[in-house]
Amino acid sequence: MPSVFASPNPVLFGRGTSKEIGEKLKEFGCTKVLVIFDQGVKKAGIADTVIANINRAGIGTVAYDDVLPDPPDWSIEEAAALGLREDVDGVVGLGGGSSMDTAKGAKLLLSNPPPINQYFGRDGVVKTAGKPLIVIPTTAGTGSENTPGGVITDTRRNVKDVVVGPGCAVSLGIVDPELTVALPPEITASTGMDAFCHAVESFTSKRWNSFSDVVAKEAITLIGKNLTRAYHEGSNIEAREAMLFASSLGGIAMSGPLCHLGHDIGKPLGANFHIPHGTSVASCLPQILEYIAPAVPEKIRFIAEALGNHVPETASVDTIGELAGAAVKALMKEINLPNFKSYGLTKSEVLGIAPDVIKFGLALAPMPTTEDVVRNLLSQAFEEN
Amino acid sequence: MPSVFASPNPVLFGRGTSKEIGEKLKEFGCTKVLVIFDQGVKKAGIADTVIANINRAGIGTVAYDDVLPDPPDWSIEEAAALGLREDVDGVVGLGGGSSMDTAKGAKLLLSNPPPINQYFGRDGVVKTAGKPLIVIPTTAGTGSENTPGGVITDTRRNVKDVVVGPGCAVSLGIVDPELTVALPPEITASTGMDAFCHAVESFTSKRWNSFSDVVAKEAITLIGKNLTRAYHEGSNIEAREAMLFASSLGGIAMSGPLCHLGHDIGKPLGANFHIPHGTSVASCLPQILEYIAPAVPEKIRFIAEALGNHVPETASVDTIGELAGAAVKALMKEINLPNFKSYGLTKSEVLGIAPDVIKFGLALAPMPTTEDVVRNLLSQAFEEN
Repeated sequence: MPSVFASPNPVLFGRGTSKEIGEKLKEFGCTKVLVIFDQGVKKAGIADTVIANINRAGIGTVAYDDVLPDPPDWSIEEAAALGLREDVDGVVGLGGGSSMDTAKGAKLLLSNPPPINQYFGRDGVVKTAGKPLIVIPTTAGTGSENTPGGVITDTRRNVKDVVVGPGCAVSLGIVDPELTVALPPEITASTGMDAFCHAVESFTSKRWNSFSDVVAKEAITLIGKNLTRAYHEGSNIEAREAMLFASSLGGIAMSGPLCHLGHDIGKPLGANFHIPHGTSVASCLPQILEYIAPAVPEKIRFIAEALGNHVPETASVDTIGELAGAAVKALMKEINLPNFKSYGLTKSEVLGIAPDVIKFGLALAPMPTTEDVVRNLLSQAFEEN
Repeated sequence: MPSVFASPNPVLFGRGTSKEIGEKLKEFGCTKVLVIFDQGVKKAGIADTVIANINRAGIGTVAYDDVLPDPPDWSIEEAAALGLREDVDGVVGLGGGSSMDTAKGAKLLLSNPPPINQYFGRDGVVKTAGKPLIVIPTTAGTGSENTPGGVITDTRRNVKDVVVGPGCAVSLGIVDPELTVALPPEITASTGMDAFCHAVESFTSKRWNSFSDVVAKEAITLIGKNLTRAYHEGSNIEAREAMLFASSLGGIAMSGPLCHLGHDIGKPLGANFHIPHGTSVASCLPQILEYIAPAVPEKIRFIAEALGNHVPETASVDTIGELAGAAVKALMKEINLPNFKSYGLTKSEVLGIAPDVIKFGLALAPMPTTEDVVRNLLSQAFEEN
């Protein structure tokens, strides 16, 4: 199927690369930077280490350490205001997707007036480049270092929206698996499933393309082999490296095809019940794969087999879907991923998000996305997962 | 190994996509475009078809149909002068690497004064975007639709140099395998080996990176399975599609790591003896793989196996190199690729290019690139291939 593929962000990948942050900022001509992270990254000691590495290169720093999950618009404005007050000439986003996306938004507001909401939109409102931005992921999930946009919560509408384009572009991603070794198992699980959903959903999106498929397949294969290892053996650097590479590939894979039902369902779940992003987007994945199997059976077969479930050559599309669904359920059990009941939700609460899925979702699944379909998926997921 | 990966060009890939050229130019706001191609593309009837598709969308055309192999600087200036005289607001490059690179250079000169030579350099002299440029490859070789630069012959120095950056950037690549079905076998062979060298050399470059490797491996696998098929069965659209996809992946793969000995040797061979580009860059490939096997044995093993030569688990690095070299020699025989003797060259003529390889080459092989090494490779290739 013809489609467009482009991966705009330069990325430096490898063990120990985060130590190069100071030199890289120097190459961009920075003298004082706004470093953006959250309390988790601070407590893990990662922020102190990175800031020390920046300072060692003779570059000043000012810290915004209040990043929130599903970052709200006002926090982006708060971070940018701090940067403007302190007259910084560059931004560093350090952490998971929330920190990197806050940094993308803050970069935009260093060169453009607030509020951030006026720059929302997938076409990219701001066409001119701003100050340099380096992002450093500390989780193997979001792949935000490889995407052209930042996801921000519009608190007036209670939905997530995006800023895209040169005004918030990543100048360099520094992707260092050593930073992910100390990640707690439950965050490894949740963020790992986010990466898996990026790869699986872009692979099966209506907007799939051949280039993206190459990258998505590699990500799916790596996650199938390494997520449970990274979950059970946190200090296994090979597993961590494979997972971080896979999540970074996921960011490339989804840049064109985008995601579909998993993320369409996960976003209102996250907004309404504060379920971690990765857990919420994966919440119905087994059921989604079963549902879309008739449209893309060979791709669903690939996913099942990447998770270790052999699919007989002569399997029907229903069987292919069931085997893939079972493989994802087994993976989710293996990494103790919380389900709807873990969060004390009732079935009717869960089903209540269906209208928002239709209203705000991208509807890029290769099968129809109706409110009934979504209610069925949620209902099955509530019973089965 | 840490490195930087970025693939800047959007690409539309698939059978029949070239029919969309008019609509795509409209989306870029073009009203009259300079269409750049060579006599081969004209004789094959491809230029007429594409121009008719452009005109059907209500867009005017002016043709520059004199593209030369290894396009000389003055021909770029000639094409651009025609475009300026005719007041075009967009460029289409249609053909192999020479046509696409001529189009990149002409685009640059539509918005910047000649001569083209003042814009040479890998860092990209012109930082501002010019007029829209759509490129359409008609050979499965160069991958130029996916690279950030254009290769142009500097006639004053008799070397190839490059223009890079926004000033010559591809706005969209349209990659349609149907355009390659009528390609003569000898051009299928030569351009296919160019694509293979891009993938193999970027995969084994000193500047390799993990992202690029994913793409390079897919290209190597596809070429291993499809080049002889495309050579022997020109109308086999599956083989043509796989080859064109592989060559496009090759363009992505090499954008960061660049090429090494194959292209370092091939470029002066091409400049001095007018051997087609793909044939000249592949001329020493078996020997190069044997030479670099000690540095990257597992990668050379991958290449040998992708060409169907099983490598025993316990094979020594020398054996791995020999098996890969033998596999490439077999491929070259299978597609009747001309060797040095086919061009009536003597051994001393061939060895005579060694100083230029050192002087102008990138020296990115994972083993030392000295004049002696190059002479040995050329000498062995002269005897063996």
